[in-house]
Amino acid sequence: MNTKKLQIGLFGFGTVGNGLYDVLKRIESSNVEIRRICVRDINKPRTVKALFTDNADEIFSDPEINFIVELIDDADAAYDIVKRALMKRLPVVSGNKKMLARHIEELIDLQRQYNTALLYDASACGSIPVIRNLEEYYDNDLLTSVKGILNGSSNFILSKIFNEKMSYPAALKLAQDLGFAESNPSLDIDGWDSLFKLIIITVHAFGLYVAPEQIFTYGISNMNDDDIRFATEKERRFKLIGHVEKIDGNRLIMSVMPQLISREKYIYSVEDEFNGVVIKGLFYDKQFMFGRGAGGYPTGSAVLSDITACLYNYKYEYKKRNDSQLPTYTTDHSFRVYYRYTDAEDLALVHFDSISESYISDTNKYVIGYVSLSELHRVQEELRHRNVFIAAYPRD
Amino acid sequence: MNTKKLQIGLFGFGTVGNGLYDVLKRIESSNVEIRRICVRDINKPRTVKALFTDNADEIFSDPEINFIVELIDDADAAYDIVKRALMKRLPVVSGNKKMLARHIEELIDLQRQYNTALLYDASACGSIPVIRNLEEYYDNDLLTSVKGILNGSSNFILSKIFNEKMSYPAALKLAQDLGFAESNPSLDIDGWDSLFKLIIITVHAFGLYVAPEQIFTYGISNMNDDDIRFATEKERRFKLIGHVEKIDGNRLIMSVMPQLISREKYIYSVEDEFNGVVIKGLFYDKQFMFGRGAGGYPTGSAVLSDITACLYNYKYEYKKRNDSQLPTYTTDHSFRVYYRYTDAEDLALVHFDSISESYISDTNKYVIGYVSLSELHRVQEELRHRNVFIAAYPRD
Repeated sequence: MNTKKLQIGLFGFGTVGNGLYDVLKRIESSNVEIRRICVRDINKPRTVKALFTDNADEIFSDPEINFIVELIDDADAAYDIVKRALMKRLPVVSGNKKMLARHIEELIDLQRQYNTALLYDASACGSIPVIRNLEEYYDNDLLTSVKGILNGSSNFILSKIFNEKMSYPAALKLAQDLGFAESNPSLDIDGWDSLFKLIIITVHAFGLYVAPEQIFTYGISNMNDDDIRFATEKERRFKLIGHVEKIDGNRLIMSVMPQLISREKYIYSVEDEFNGVVIKGLFYDKQFMFGRGAGGYPTGSAVLSDITACLYNYKYEYKKRNDSQLPTYTTDHSFRVYYRYTDAEDLALVHFDSISESYISDTNKYVIGYVSLSELHRVQEELRHRNVFIAAYPRD
Repeated sequence: MNTKKLQIGLFGFGTVGNGLYDVLKRIESSNVEIRRICVRDINKPRTVKALFTDNADEIFSDPEINFIVELIDDADAAYDIVKRALMKRLPVVSGNKKMLARHIEELIDLQRQYNTALLYDASACGSIPVIRNLEEYYDNDLLTSVKGILNGSSNFILSKIFNEKMSYPAALKLAQDLGFAESNPSLDIDGWDSLFKLIIITVHAFGLYVAPEQIFTYGISNMNDDDIRFATEKERRFKLIGHVEKIDGNRLIMSVMPQLISREKYIYSVEDEFNGVVIKGLFYDKQFMFGRGAGGYPTGSAVLSDITACLYNYKYEYKKRNDSQLPTYTTDHSFRVYYRYTDAEDLALVHFDSISESYISDTNKYVIGYVSLSELHRVQEELRHRNVFIAAYPRD
C-alpha cells in the first residue's frame, strides 16, 4: 500500500464530482482529500466550501497535489487534462467515456511511457466493476461475448415507458431532473454513450480497439407507439444493448442498438437507471452483473474505488492487448431484425438478406428479416433521420 | 507478468480437477501445464493420460513443479498440502472451503511470512469472482451487506422442487448424478458449504474472521410439503441464503438459513445450480452478481482464473483486515421467521420475542414471529433433529 496521503486535484463539479465530494466527506478518509477543484464557471453559486479555481495551471503547479480526478463533460478538455497528468507522472482517474473511446490507445502508451496509472472503471456502467473484472478475471481464451445495458438514462426512459406508460418526452425530462442524463440527451438516447462504453469494454475484454465510427450505433429516439405495442404483444421489451461477440474464425462483431428482449432474459428485468452486463464464456456459460449505472453517488463511489485502487498501486495491465492472436473486427454478420417504416422508399433503403414477415396496415408497416451489420452501418445516418425504427429481434 | 512457465502439481482429480484439466487442454496454454497429479487411489481407471501418483512427496520434491493446485475433498489433507506449499514458497490455489473457513487466519499469516500467494476465488461461488471483487472494489466504509445463494447443489434441489414439483430425494439424486453435489450431501443441504463460503466472503468483505461454530447454520433438509405449500401460497420460494450485514454500531450479523424470497427479488430468479450474490452499500445501493456456482467446467475455469492471476503476481492484500475499526460480531439481533412444528414441545424449544401469527390444523402447525440469532444458535442442533422447519420471512 502507498502510505502517502492523496491530495486530489479535481476537474469538474457536476453530478459525479459533487457525488464524489459527498462520498469522501461521509467516509472521513484520512488518506484522501480533495485539495482543489477546477470548474468552468467560478462564479456559479455552490453549496460546498472548497478551493475552487477556473485555471487548470493552479492545479498542475500545486506541489501538494499528487493525484488528478477528471470528471468533466468536454471530451477535448478532458483529453488535455489526462494527457498532461500522465506526462507529469500524476496518477489520474477519468470518467470521460467519449474521450477514452477516442484516445485510449494513445493513453495506454502514455501510461507505459511515464509509468503512471490511468483508471476509469467509473466510466463504464457506473458502480459495476465491469472493466476491472474483464481485465483481471475473464480469460480471453474463454470469453465469448459481453452484452448489456450500458446506459442508465435511456434504460430509465424505457422503463418509464414500458412500466408506467409514460410519454417519451416526460420520461426524458424526469431522467434529466434526477441527474441521470448527460447534458446532451442525444448521447444517451442515440446510443453514443453506450458506444463509448462498449469500445472501452472491448479493449479490456478482447484486447482490440475499434474506433467509434466503425461500429453500427442506433438509439431509441425513433421508437413510436406502434413499436411499443409490437413489443408488448410479443411479451418483450425494447432495451438499448451494447454488444461485442467473438464469432467463428476469431472475428469480433460489435453493435449498439435496441433489442427486443424476452421475459426469460436477465436483462429484461434491469429497470430504471440500473445497468446490467451479461458475460459469456466457453466454460462458465454466463455471468450477470447488475448495479446502478448512473447518478452522482453510485458513480462517485465508483470513482472512489478507482482512487483506492491507485492507493494500492493498481494499474490496468491490458493483458489481452499482448495476445498474439488478437481477434479481427468484422461487420460481415447477419441477424434478425424488426424494421418499422413509413413508405416504400424507407424499405428500399436497407438491403435485407431475407424477409420472413411483412405487415402493412393503414397506419403501420413493418418487416421482420435478416440484415447484415455492414449494411446497417452503411445507412446508419439515413436511418436516424427517417421515420423508421429498427431493433434486433433474436429467436429465443 | 511472470514469464516463467507454470508447472503445476495438482492434488485431486474429482469433478473440479477433471474440469481444470479439460479447460487447460482446450485452451492449449503455453504458459501453464499440469505436470503431475496426486490422487488417493492410483489404481482407479482414468480416461486421461497423465502422470498420476499417490505420494505427495513426489510432487513436493519435483524441482520442476513451481505451482500447487489443491482440489481435494478432505479438509485436513488440504490444510497440510496448502501449508506445506506456502512454507516452500510455492504459490497455491485451493478450492477447499471447509479448510479455508477453519484455517484462513493462519494461512494469511503464512502468506505474509513466506511472501507467497494463496488464491481461492474458485472456492466461493464457483465462476463468480466475488472474493476478488470484495477485496479490490467494494470499499469497507461503504459496504453494508453481502447476501446470496452460495451453494449450487441445494439451489438446484430447491429449483427442481419448486419448478418441476420433483420430490426431494429425486432432486438430490439428480444433483449428485450431474456432479453438482459434494460427496457428503449434508455439506450442501444442511448449509455447511454455504457457511464456509460465507466465512471466507466475510474476511474479504469486512476484514473479520468468525469461526464456523459461532454462526447460526440451518439447511433445507427438514423442509416438507406443508412448507412448500406455504411458500407457494405466499408467492414466495425458499432459497438457502448466506448473509452477512453490518448493523448499527459497527456490528456484524451472520447466518445461513432458508429464506422466503418474494418474486421481486433478484435472488428469486436464480435457478438450478447457479449462484447469485447481492452486495449492498451506502452509496451504490445494490449490486447483483450471478453465475454458475458448481460443476467441473465453471469451477475449473475459476481455478484457471486464479492461476492466471498468479502468473501476474496477484495476491489478496486483505486490506480490510488492517482497518483500525474492525466490526465486532454479534448474534444479538432479532428478525421475523416462519416456524413450522409438530408438537407443543417443539414450539417451547425456541423463545420468540413475539409471535404475530399462529396456525394450527390437524396436520400442520406454524407460527410467524420474531426471534434472535443468539436464541436460534443456542438450539441449532436440536432444531435439526426435530420435525420442525424454520426460515427467515422478511416483510417486503
